[in-house]
Amino acid sequence: MDRRSFNRRLLAGGAVAAAGAGAGVTSLSLASAAAPAADPANASDVANAADAVNVADAVNVADTPPRTAPAGGQTRRLTMFAETLPNGQMGYGFERGKASVPGPLIELNEGDTVHIEFENTTSVPVSLHVHGVDYDIANDGTRMSGSHVDPGATRTYTWRTHAPGFRADGTWQPGSAGYWHYHDHVVGTDHGTGGIRKGLYGGLVVRRKGDILPDKQFTIVFNDMTINNKPAAESPDFEATVGDRVEIVMITHGEFYHTFHMHGHRWADNRTGLLTGPDDPSRVIDNKITGPADSFGFQIIAGERGGAGAWMYHCHVQSHSDMGMAGLFLVARPDGTVPGYEPHHMGAAGAAGAASASGAAADHAEGHHPSG
Amino acid sequence: MDRRSFNRRLLAGGAVAAAGAGAGVTSLSLASAAAPAADPANASDVANAADAVNVADAVNVADTPPRTAPAGGQTRRLTMFAETLPNGQMGYGFERGKASVPGPLIELNEGDTVHIEFENTTSVPVSLHVHGVDYDIANDGTRMSGSHVDPGATRTYTWRTHAPGFRADGTWQPGSAGYWHYHDHVVGTDHGTGGIRKGLYGGLVVRRKGDILPDKQFTIVFNDMTINNKPAAESPDFEATVGDRVEIVMITHGEFYHTFHMHGHRWADNRTGLLTGPDDPSRVIDNKITGPADSFGFQIIAGERGGAGAWMYHCHVQSHSDMGMAGLFLVARPDGTVPGYEPHHMGAAGAAGAASASGAAADHAEGHHPSG
Amino acid sequence: MDRRSFNRRLLAGGAVAAAGAGAGVTSLSLASAAAPAADPANASDVANAADAVNVADAVNVADTPPRTAPAGGQTRRLTMFAETLPNGQMGYGFERGKASVPGPLIELNEGDTVHIEFENTTSVPVSLHVHGVDYDIANDGTRMSGSHVDPGATRTYTWRTHAPGFRADGTWQPGSAGYWHYHDHVVGTDHGTGGIRKGLYGGLVVRRKGDILPDKQFTIVFNDMTINNKPAAESPDFEATVGDRVEIVMITHGEFYHTFHMHGHRWADNRTGLLTGPDDPSRVIDNKITGPADSFGFQIIAGERGGAGAWMYHCHVQSHSDMGMAGLFLVARPDGTVPGYEPHHMGAAGAAGAASASGAAADHAEGHHPSG
Repeated sequence: MDRRSFNRRLLAGGAVAAAGAGAGVTSLSLASAAAPAADPANASDVANAADAVNVADAVNVADTPPRTAPAGGQTRRLTMFAETLPNGQMGYGFERGKASVPGPLIELNEGDTVHIEFENTTSVPVSLHVHGVDYDIANDGTRMSGSHVDPGATRTYTWRTHAPGFRADGTWQPGSAGYWHYHDHVVGTDHGTGGIRKGLYGGLVVRRKGDILPDKQFTIVFNDMTINNKPAAESPDFEATVGDRVEIVMITHGEFYHTFHMHGHRWADNRTGLLTGPDDPSRVIDNKITGPADSFGFQIIAGERGGAGAWMYHCHVQSHSDMGMAGLFLVARPDGTVPGYEPHHMGAAGAAGAASASGAAADHAEGHHPSG
Repeated sequence: MDRRSFNRRLLAGGAVAAAGAGAGVTSLSLASAAAPAADPANASDVANAADAVNVADAVNVADTPPRTAPAGGQTRRLTMFAETLPNGQMGYGFERGKASVPGPLIELNEGDTVHIEFENTTSVPVSLHVHGVDYDIANDGTRMSGSHVDPGATRTYTWRTHAPGFRADGTWQPGSAGYWHYHDHVVGTDHGTGGIRKGLYGGLVVRRKGDILPDKQFTIVFNDMTINNKPAAESPDFEATVGDRVEIVMITHGEFYHTFHMHGHRWADNRTGLLTGPDDPSRVIDNKITGPADSFGFQIIAGERGGAGAWMYHCHVQSHSDMGMAGLFLVARPDGTVPGYEPHHMGAAGAAGAASASGAAADHAEGHHPSG
Repeated sequence: MDRRSFNRRLLAGGAVAAAGAGAGVTSLSLASAAAPAADPANASDVANAADAVNVADAVNVADTPPRTAPAGGQTRRLTMFAETLPNGQMGYGFERGKASVPGPLIELNEGDTVHIEFENTTSVPVSLHVHGVDYDIANDGTRMSGSHVDPGATRTYTWRTHAPGFRADGTWQPGSAGYWHYHDHVVGTDHGTGGIRKGLYGGLVVRRKGDILPDKQFTIVFNDMTINNKPAAESPDFEATVGDRVEIVMITHGEFYHTFHMHGHRWADNRTGLLTGPDDPSRVIDNKITGPADSFGFQIIAGERGGAGAWMYHCHVQSHSDMGMAGLFLVARPDGTVPGYEPHHMGAAGAAGAASASGAAADHAEGHHPSG
């Protein structure tokens, strides 16, 4: 079709797996129980809002309250490996030989503690530096503090989290809830520039009791000029069905600033990405400037108000999107089809050179991307 | 005057029109009625605030409540044209031959639907992609979804908006209110890099019932190294009288990050740019980093607390302001004079090369700008 | 120790002074009285929060309420000098011969007015342009408004502030509280590019009645590729003891965007950097993108939840941190020691070339920094 230089990908019954989801264990949730539904009492002022009614055409949304996060307080143990991948990139994984880029998404509830037995299977010192949660200087994951791990060595990193509350002096202490992330801080330079460039990073979500839990989760990392370290022609697509509550964990790394944009969907620019109610003054956005080590997250109802479709997400810096920092959020109808998206099998070009950063065959779809 | 290398512009009885406001229709507001004043009940907690009194020296502010936005729910029809301008730039306009850069500001109220009959009078495919509001994939304005318009062709784009409210599952859905924008997504590249560069963009404001309405509105777009695609020496000035409630719609496009700064005025970094009251924790700012496709807006009382004057607004990235990303917010006394601003008629230099991007003679003032 | 290329600094009984704190007067607070403790009534909704209890392991925090800001309303007079420093940089200072980079931190309470008698001791015109507070066009500090100061000349700048409250029209006017800053606007270019580059900038804090007052304050300015105009090898360190309430005033200047990151500490992305309570939807962050003339501030409890340590703070743009945009937040135990931080005396290398931008001998520690 004339100037349609972009390509499409096969969309057929799960053939395209969620990017970043390798064959190994790729996500840990310490949420062990579905908490009761959000207390209507929390929404009392909402009930008084004049316009808080009649969103009747919100389609495909369940009529039962979503699951919410339980109170934390658990102590958990994780095993994590730093590995060199076949393509020369590096990744973190929960199982030996299963590292991925980004590394597995870790989820905690405020109050949880996690001990991570960390093994460095690579040939250079590696570390695990985390944002947002509580750790002492011995768990900083920096060379200066001596908290890195030599090749072949193992150590345990401990991260703690806490719920909000009053300090002894009567002031208010924030809780640990947030969309955070972890990364190497020693490969290449004392700031981990080489490790991050090669893929040593991942997302961390800490939830507050009562926070709404999603149906699906995707981690999107703008790392230098790549998305999740994929070549421009292979930027990851993400799949959902209309009505799914989808959580996006968005992290930036490297050298450049970016603007993250999604077509057809929008979110609140606050802690959860969800407005707390009609009195929340936060801006609702569909585009956000971010710089290295910034992270944020949000939940969207796939296709809400716009329906199914092959919705672009991309960096909105024009040269960046033109060079391939763009992927698709494929929102299918209940029957699995995506309007305007023509399933077809890839030709030789494009698929041939596809290298899977995570080493997981199912991780990567064929084809390449709309990139001008 | 020694090193005063900057120039001044004539300020005389409306001779300098609002930049971006061409001779054609340049703004559409679907607000058909002035709603009643803001309900004092909404400010009940405000009344209890200890310091919520005595802003006695706030001068020149009317003592009657400002008009507010009515409830939406209307269905409107618009005609829009994409055109190539005499200077080679491109623009959107509501009337044939009246395109401007930026395109006309569109205003909706939550609940409104607008059908835009869009005609492409240029020689290349063009589209209309919108941020923030509701549209299905057939109205995405991208080549991939086939929702662009070939040269000479016409199609209708439909945008919908909605008020906030509860979903069927009991969760809170944000409304469409915000400072949004629209732009081409297909000229030059599949991300519209060429179309945006040439001027195919404009602002969109969606209001919530009760939102305060402004007296004047200006759209300021930092597009690459220009303001509203004007050459550096001709950056637009904006005029108001002390006490006017002025709304700024600020959009960024192109390649670069910028920081938007105004002298003598400040705003809240939230949805409306106005604090909701004493409990609103939002930062008040006068400088904000933005990247391509970011947008925000706010209202200021012209000259509040600072009085009349030729107040600079500019990108605060030093090289950008030095290269001319700076204009004036001319706040006049009630008698029309601006203190410290010396009206004079331009000499030959400066005015000679002035090209009007919008093709409207009244659109562009003579002279050029403070640019180091 | 193998690849430990970074260096450490001497930490011994106050030998390392707070960076930016020269021998002269470096901070002005107009807070003349400690106000009564925060009214528990303001936290009434907090008391009802289900999880607002039991932050029992918050260590080293005093059990008496912190001091808070009094109501403003005072009129104060300041003397300020613009000076050329021995190393060719330029600075502002409260006393002749005592200029520093950054300039002295100025603190006001909403309602205060300050008259600054400003003397330009340099050989070029200089000005004082302020962000956030109230001033008329004659106090804009720009060449265009004629509000700069010729070499050897003196003039008075007046800045005013105000508390929030209702306008005559019933709308809510924000107060002046915020983390603001001042800088030159005329040296080098009409936007002060040369003056800012050489060090003509400083912080300004305006407090609201009841705002919590800190124990210690540090101003951190990312100016082009420097921190506080220090060479990369001499980035400033900051000292505190576990439990200190430390205020960071963070300002960006120059050409580049940066991301400000602190290890082991985090803050709220709102006006005060402190959550107002459990209903504050603001994101808690430990990393923030900023551009030229952006400013923000926050308070942290040194070592809260992480304890004592040599905590890095740095720009998280990888090449920037690698090139030296990194310093240490040295949080000592009550006995003055910092775990994991090995006190040692510097060798010849590193200390030899140390130039003190502020001309104050105690201002700059020996050694250089973790910089890959």
